[in-house]
Amino acid sequence: MKLSKLIGDRFKERPADCVIDSHALMIRGGYIKYVANGIYSSYLPLRRTMHKIEQIIREEMDAIDGQEVQFPIALPASLWEESGRYESVGKELLRFTDRSGSPMVLGMTHEEAAVQLVREYGQTYSRYPFMIYQIQTKFRDEARPRAGLIRVREFTMKDAYSFHTSQEDLEEYYIRAHAAYERIFARVGVPEVISVASDSGMMGGNVSHEFMLLSPAGEDSIALCDACGYRANMEAAECITEPLPASASCLTEVHTPDCHTIEEVCDFLHTSPERSCKAVVYQKNTDDSYVVLFLRGDREVNETKLTNFLGCEIHPAVITEDSGLTAGFIGPVGLTKRLAAGSTVLFDRSLAHASDLVCGANKPDYHYTGLSVERDLAAEYEAYGYGPSAFRGTDSAADYGISFHDFAKITEGGICPHCGKKTIRISRGIEVGNIFQLGTKYTEAMHMEYTDSDGSVHTPVMGCYGIGIGRLAASVCEAHHDEYGPIWPLSIAPWQVHLCAVRVDDASVRACADSLYEQLNDAHVEVLYDDRSVRAGIMFSDADLLGIPYRIIVSPRNLSEQCVELVSRDKTLQEKVPSEAVVDRIRQLIYEKQ
Amino acid sequence: MKLSKLIGDRFKERPADCVIDSHALMIRGGYIKYVANGIYSSYLPLRRTMHKIEQIIREEMDAIDGQEVQFPIALPASLWEESGRYESVGKELLRFTDRSGSPMVLGMTHEEAAVQLVREYGQTYSRYPFMIYQIQTKFRDEARPRAGLIRVREFTMKDAYSFHTSQEDLEEYYIRAHAAYERIFARVGVPEVISVASDSGMMGGNVSHEFMLLSPAGEDSIALCDACGYRANMEAAECITEPLPASASCLTEVHTPDCHTIEEVCDFLHTSPERSCKAVVYQKNTDDSYVVLFLRGDREVNETKLTNFLGCEIHPAVITEDSGLTAGFIGPVGLTKRLAAGSTVLFDRSLAHASDLVCGANKPDYHYTGLSVERDLAAEYEAYGYGPSAFRGTDSAADYGISFHDFAKITEGGICPHCGKKTIRISRGIEVGNIFQLGTKYTEAMHMEYTDSDGSVHTPVMGCYGIGIGRLAASVCEAHHDEYGPIWPLSIAPWQVHLCAVRVDDASVRACADSLYEQLNDAHVEVLYDDRSVRAGIMFSDADLLGIPYRIIVSPRNLSEQCVELVSRDKTLQEKVPSEAVVDRIRQLIYEKQ
Repeated sequence: MKLSKLIGDRFKERPADCVIDSHALMIRGGYIKYVANGIYSSYLPLRRTMHKIEQIIREEMDAIDGQEVQFPIALPASLWEESGRYESVGKELLRFTDRSGSPMVLGMTHEEAAVQLVREYGQTYSRYPFMIYQIQTKFRDEARPRAGLIRVREFTMKDAYSFHTSQEDLEEYYIRAHAAYERIFARVGVPEVISVASDSGMMGGNVSHEFMLLSPAGEDSIALCDACGYRANMEAAECITEPLPASASCLTEVHTPDCHTIEEVCDFLHTSPERSCKAVVYQKNTDDSYVVLFLRGDREVNETKLTNFLGCEIHPAVITEDSGLTAGFIGPVGLTKRLAAGSTVLFDRSLAHASDLVCGANKPDYHYTGLSVERDLAAEYEAYGYGPSAFRGTDSAADYGISFHDFAKITEGGICPHCGKKTIRISRGIEVGNIFQLGTKYTEAMHMEYTDSDGSVHTPVMGCYGIGIGRLAASVCEAHHDEYGPIWPLSIAPWQVHLCAVRVDDASVRACADSLYEQLNDAHVEVLYDDRSVRAGIMFSDADLLGIPYRIIVSPRNLSEQCVELVSRDKTLQEKVPSEAVVDRIRQLIYEKQ
Repeated sequence: MKLSKLIGDRFKERPADCVIDSHALMIRGGYIKYVANGIYSSYLPLRRTMHKIEQIIREEMDAIDGQEVQFPIALPASLWEESGRYESVGKELLRFTDRSGSPMVLGMTHEEAAVQLVREYGQTYSRYPFMIYQIQTKFRDEARPRAGLIRVREFTMKDAYSFHTSQEDLEEYYIRAHAAYERIFARVGVPEVISVASDSGMMGGNVSHEFMLLSPAGEDSIALCDACGYRANMEAAECITEPLPASASCLTEVHTPDCHTIEEVCDFLHTSPERSCKAVVYQKNTDDSYVVLFLRGDREVNETKLTNFLGCEIHPAVITEDSGLTAGFIGPVGLTKRLAAGSTVLFDRSLAHASDLVCGANKPDYHYTGLSVERDLAAEYEAYGYGPSAFRGTDSAADYGISFHDFAKITEGGICPHCGKKTIRISRGIEVGNIFQLGTKYTEAMHMEYTDSDGSVHTPVMGCYGIGIGRLAASVCEAHHDEYGPIWPLSIAPWQVHLCAVRVDDASVRACADSLYEQLNDAHVEVLYDDRSVRAGIMFSDADLLGIPYRIIVSPRNLSEQCVELVSRDKTLQEKVPSEAVVDRIRQLIYEKQ
């Protein structure tokens, strides 16, 4: 391929709307072009990189006994009604009606289609386990696409679905899939990707992992413990709160004029936020009923945990007069008799056994001090619906059963839920893949069954495994670039060698470069040949933007020394090689890396 | 790959809803599964075949300087508004609104997206010509999906778009693209595919060709001349009508009671349909205005030609009282003064110079005889809007200019528009590809311009080139199958060798087959290994359904002769080969075919 024929423009200026480097470099290097919000066309260099990533994924999926299939993009809504997701998934699921009036969806994930495809095939135990996967375009109507290919609305994805006769068999396979994912990320050039425990969200199931590339450009927050190796998405990480010393102070109403925030109240009363009981109020999306969550003042709400507990989406509350709530002064004491019917009151685990707390008094400009959760709230909330003894646990928070739950965000410097040390650190990460133990959520809802060797009928257990191909390409770029362009790993670089003929109007340069181009092609080395009559500066900045691992420079000066220059994009290699030896040298370098 | 692990069921019974063989065989062989009307999932064997077809297409597109890109499936409606197709294309274009309320479409073809991608790149003449292509899923909301993968709503397509600085350059490239298509069809195993002149339909442009696999299963009708090689889709084929001897009979009103059809009138008046002037009435979809088309009684309307002439879609008319039309008795004489305002009257070329015709008298139960088109209609229609001399041409039909147009269907045994012999025959065909000279329809509408070497600004000229991958796979199956299954050409077969271990419980069979499986894999021969403990009949009928070109049969009987059996799916090869020689023999056979 000659660079002079390569379609797409390369330029120096960073586009104003690009927040992260990979986005800017992919626009500047002629990899992608904006079409609509979160929707891009792509040019040849990115196509080639994506084909290579796809081929690596295919090989690794086949190596764990996967079979490639293809599901439709447009699916009948009836399939999603079978699983219940037609109702439960939000606006990111694109729903439409076809010309005959039938409701349809654009598949943003394909659990339903996978079950539909193998429901009959999988009727006998002897056919298990098996795994199917596809590489296909998906559409997800994201509310906030961002960061170029990191979060888009239309994307190419590898999604895989495995089927098993037992949870144990799924778990064994899950380990194989996890290992395959590690090989994939290593092969595409990001061995530093780590897996973290994650929240299963709308997929259902219990155990799941995300594969994260740690990067400031990421939109996920990850809790890491350097002491024991614990890693989890902040959405899923358990928050452990160290109890404060108990105190027997009395519940006392105090006047707190002009105090509107936790900080102001604590300042006014000369106490600290961890000695306060804070209220955060939401409404359920389903019926707008109120959800009042109390946490210790130094904790933040983890809305994913709250949503999972409630089983429905929520939004920040609009507090009306008939809510029974006094904005700014909401507290748990006496709240249950004021609250609108249908409301829910929840307590975060950080409040278990807590005492000597400041809390709102449910009337303007008044707070309580000296609140002891067990002493002052047990009777009211056990009567309200928490049941007998709900508030009278032992000193272990777990003993409170359903009464106190984990609704809080883990924090930097917090306690590791695995080793108990105060070693948690929070990093940003880009999610480049995920794996889920789905269980029987889909097979049960869609009536997939198999007959076992003893004639008994069971529901198969499923796992699912996703990788976004475009996001992975962008993540590799994010991990491996400099200010001048991407530094593609050899395994997924659009080409292997970038051949630059500097001063191509010089007959000996032209002859040497043309000959090398032919030799490299004959040797099946993928070469991009820049034979344009342009300044060396333009040539090299274009080469930097294309990020090809090896560069051969033919110039009058080199040729005067009977050499060409061989440099690597990552600058670790820079040598002069006789022009007749450079093809062998390149082949050797490529061979070493494979 | 072991057959025992191959996902998908194979069975004997032809599904009741399968009209054509390839559909039935692809269902029966575990290639595809029905998901919704015109929407299928596919299993591994079809995936492998489609990957091979895609790779062949990629190689041939690259060989004519194409560059692979990718366009989005979901496109903003604004792009289609730029070209004008958002309005002009019918319900097959799926329109929807995204979560932010923006109107969008699912791309069923990508001319707009192609122009959007290269509009800036193509601003300078020196970058021309260039061609981009993609292989991508498309959705077209067909009114009547049918015949399995032949006409579906969701399909994988290779679509290519070329850009040129002149019509001449486009024409040169068009010839290269035509040749590339011929190579593609030959390489996938259907060299018998022919190109025919076609109608450009909604694509715009003038010259276009369809690549047709002649097959009774096809839904297109093709006019072929064996004398000169003329080939055209019936939609586009010019209809030549031999004039009848002139006659000077007078225009006479006659009473024709109970005559409702052309045949009844002609019977009653002892004349033949070719001596009649028939009216066919439509309404425009845009405003429901009437279109009255007169043809010679022995001609049928070619609605594609009529639609192209009118520039809008039409539907059969509902004749109301205020239309001015007398159903069953519509004739051209005096019609213009009765007809509702806004109506259109058209004459087919078959009526040019015609005389002594029967036609309706525009009142119930009356016809005219002795109509001479030129003598009796010139004054009325030249006044009506056809302009002076419109009806007074010379004896060449072409001289009539716009007055008489070709609106009729070419017929079996009709006159070849190329060589003039009465040699036309009509065949059915499956359209497996098409190429269009688009001209400047899209570039002009979307303001794509380039600066020429002299500084002048011009609009580039476009071509476009499509192949449906799934339809091509089904067409190859349609062309190459027997009652037991597909007979895949080696180049696109899901695997190259099908290894059957008959009586695998026999230790020597197991040992030999296992060893051959290993040897074939080591030799990079694609092998599907049937090591199931099933009857030979089941094994062979499954092998027939999978249609793999070469089959190696290991059985106790063969082994007793120190041989294995090597047969080809098309039955042209059947030999006994020493088991230690069969891998070399297979490699030789594969090598010969490549």
